[in-house]
Amino acid sequence: MNGKKLFAHLPRIINTLTDSIVSDERLRHLNQVNLPDRERIIQAIGLLRQLLFPGYFGQPGLTSDNLHQRLSQLVQSVAEVLYEQVSCCLRYRKNIAADSTQTANGDDCNDQACQIVVQFLDRLPAVRQLLALDVRAAFDGDPAAHNVDETIYCYPGLFTISVQRLAHELFKLDVPLLPRIITEYAHSLTGIDIHPGAQLGERLFIDHGTGVVIGETTRIGMNVKIYQGVTLGALAPAYGQMLRGTKRHPTIEDDVTIYAGATILGGDTVIGKGCVIGGNVFITASVPPHTQVTQEPGRLHYRERGKRKKGDEPLVLDFQI
Amino acid sequence: MNGKKLFAHLPRIINTLTDSIVSDERLRHLNQVNLPDRERIIQAIGLLRQLLFPGYFGQPGLTSDNLHQRLSQLVQSVAEVLYEQVSCCLRYRKNIAADSTQTANGDDCNDQACQIVVQFLDRLPAVRQLLALDVRAAFDGDPAAHNVDETIYCYPGLFTISVQRLAHELFKLDVPLLPRIITEYAHSLTGIDIHPGAQLGERLFIDHGTGVVIGETTRIGMNVKIYQGVTLGALAPAYGQMLRGTKRHPTIEDDVTIYAGATILGGDTVIGKGCVIGGNVFITASVPPHTQVTQEPGRLHYRERGKRKKGDEPLVLDFQI
Amino acid sequence: MNGKKLFAHLPRIINTLTDSIVSDERLRHLNQVNLPDRERIIQAIGLLRQLLFPGYFGQPGLTSDNLHQRLSQLVQSVAEVLYEQVSCCLRYRKNIAADSTQTANGDDCNDQACQIVVQFLDRLPAVRQLLALDVRAAFDGDPAAHNVDETIYCYPGLFTISVQRLAHELFKLDVPLLPRIITEYAHSLTGIDIHPGAQLGERLFIDHGTGVVIGETTRIGMNVKIYQGVTLGALAPAYGQMLRGTKRHPTIEDDVTIYAGATILGGDTVIGKGCVIGGNVFITASVPPHTQVTQEPGRLHYRERGKRKKGDEPLVLDFQI
Repeated sequence: MNGKKLFAHLPRIINTLTDSIVSDERLRHLNQVNLPDRERIIQAIGLLRQLLFPGYFGQPGLTSDNLHQRLSQLVQSVAEVLYEQVSCCLRYRKNIAADSTQTANGDDCNDQACQIVVQFLDRLPAVRQLLALDVRAAFDGDPAAHNVDETIYCYPGLFTISVQRLAHELFKLDVPLLPRIITEYAHSLTGIDIHPGAQLGERLFIDHGTGVVIGETTRIGMNVKIYQGVTLGALAPAYGQMLRGTKRHPTIEDDVTIYAGATILGGDTVIGKGCVIGGNVFITASVPPHTQVTQEPGRLHYRERGKRKKGDEPLVLDFQI
Repeated sequence: MNGKKLFAHLPRIINTLTDSIVSDERLRHLNQVNLPDRERIIQAIGLLRQLLFPGYFGQPGLTSDNLHQRLSQLVQSVAEVLYEQVSCCLRYRKNIAADSTQTANGDDCNDQACQIVVQFLDRLPAVRQLLALDVRAAFDGDPAAHNVDETIYCYPGLFTISVQRLAHELFKLDVPLLPRIITEYAHSLTGIDIHPGAQLGERLFIDHGTGVVIGETTRIGMNVKIYQGVTLGALAPAYGQMLRGTKRHPTIEDDVTIYAGATILGGDTVIGKGCVIGGNVFITASVPPHTQVTQEPGRLHYRERGKRKKGDEPLVLDFQI
Repeated sequence: MNGKKLFAHLPRIINTLTDSIVSDERLRHLNQVNLPDRERIIQAIGLLRQLLFPGYFGQPGLTSDNLHQRLSQLVQSVAEVLYEQVSCCLRYRKNIAADSTQTANGDDCNDQACQIVVQFLDRLPAVRQLLALDVRAAFDGDPAAHNVDETIYCYPGLFTISVQRLAHELFKLDVPLLPRIITEYAHSLTGIDIHPGAQLGERLFIDHGTGVVIGETTRIGMNVKIYQGVTLGALAPAYGQMLRGTKRHPTIEDDVTIYAGATILGGDTVIGKGCVIGGNVFITASVPPHTQVTQEPGRLHYRERGKRKKGDEPLVLDFQI
């Protein structure tokens, strides 16, 4: 039986691997406080989504009669998971700061976590107000939308904005790790990567959204519309950590539309009010208000498919098709 | 214990949240008929995939002997889930149309759902015929493919096309909500967003595919090859709903290849037969047949990394690296 | 009851579908050896990730005391799943080669699988060395990263590189199907599609990453930084299989940065050492070392929003906003 042959090799493999882990402190999380629990965090996001959009997700059949009871259960579950995970993140930071392998004293972290969770939950009605405007913008902006329910129930852009607006509240409350884990979860589902630090204005509409990246220090005004593949990013220095904490992503003023695939970089780059940025342009400097920017039109080139005579100049850019 | 402190705040938080939901009818689905069940729909997609590609997915060991029996079970399971979800979607629309909070009379919806599911299932052999051509196109078009099985088993483009061809049948049968939920499921897995309304020709090959967007009124001919990040989209009006129901996405004729990241917009835009569209171009007008379009070549600029003398003009676009 | 009406149609539907499957050998995997099991493979990737980054994923509380015992369990579980799946893939290839519908003799495959799994597991410490450098590059390159743990725990680029470096080992050991299934799993989670054949140099950083495509015969040097939406791809011939086995994807030399959305195609295309490739350029020819390439700047165009007088020339490219 070949399995046996294989298993005879395992003790050696295990020992070599153990040695490599023991002798090199990189890539190991050994004798440390626990990291937050991604599964629990995803569970919390699911519960929060039910609180933001009651009746759309979770158990069907929400009525005026059972509303209060169901909300109570949801809030209690969310509070429990967040309290546990925020505490964990705070202990993690304390431990890192102490540069110690001992478990940090957890009491302060629990107190602080309690305050943070209360402040966060108190913000939910305000977040709902913002999302009601985003939903409206998504419906108004998309001729393919049949009704508002569809945008809430199906649109990945709205989902990602919802999740980022929640993560942004935790970011403002200075919770480590957690906000990024939350937005990365949305990123993995939708391909839309909005850093929890980004400041998003009212009535933001991100259509389709796959490939959108919005960096940490981006500021976006009101009534902005962003299509798939748009980057609001940073210019990369030789050593990125040099730029830590500086404004390095663009500012987008009100009433701007950015078409698919546009790349806009740099902390001093301001896209003025009312601009329309065409697809696939690459912008590293400011654009004055009410300006349309388009890529230099492409070169057209007639292709006589399969009909080239000998001696003709080769069509180098013909992509061989 | 800090948890207790936290829980003392919850009644207030719950009451405020309840009030905000009761007083504002946006973002709530209260006292309404049920929305369709995404988990059940995903289950149906899994079963349909087993019907389209028998033996590739689901229980291993499909043989000539057990084929009929296994298909019987799959069809019955699929019929059950679809009947239930199509009924639900029809009741949902009826309810919306009635602008009423009462549950719509479900009997008509059940009758109609029965007809729709039968018509849909009757189309499966025809959908398989189309997919057999798509599979061939994927294999022929990709030098990295070792055999046809690999394209069926691994290729996200083929998966998304399969799902869209199914959703398109439901779209033609005028089922509300469901077709979009189905294509959004594929979008979330593959990053390829094809609206269920798009008309896809034979032998379509979408390679890699992340970031591809194909809008509702797009028409695509035969033997078309589309790479990742390509948008076939709409020009956005100030108020999107103005364009509802109009042709607002491009027409792609036969034998066209569109390279990565090209953005092609507008309902009057026709990409003629045999065109090759280069990567990252932005097109908002028609292109005549057998034309190659390429982006204006980039500017080259020598960088003396770290060697600039004082007094030299700053390299503004040097991206600081 | 309408369900009954529906079920009356099913025998006919099932028979038609069965006939279509029996009469056409495309799109069916009938009377064949089993395909590999994707769920089991995903399980193996999860376990391998725990071995690469011990303590970051999986059961919390890894300590010096329990390290050896936990690693032993992980290695045994991984070995078991890989042995089973590699055997399955080898039997699959043997069967295909024999062009036979009989089950291939599995003994050779088991022997070979045993050797392959041992060779693969022996490579894990070396893969960890490479990943330690990638982690460092990700932290150094990103001002938004607070610490190294965050890049390991949250960054989709690092996850995908980890998975590809594992799949590449199986690719070099000539395992069929499995390497591609592994990288497609990462692709589905992160939107980053790196073929298992691609040769990635040391200290590779892929930031955000959605939409990145790196083809089978790509070669990447050291200290390369790649942003979201970048394609390192092939020029497509009329019949793709013609190019099977040739070098058809670019070579990227050391110290190159490629900004978001750049598309670089062709097997003879070399991006020289120290180049900076701007966002959204389309490149099909080599670029000399230390060169910066940028897209021709966009056209700026003043828009008098809503103020056009009758008789004015229409602003065709104004995107109607």
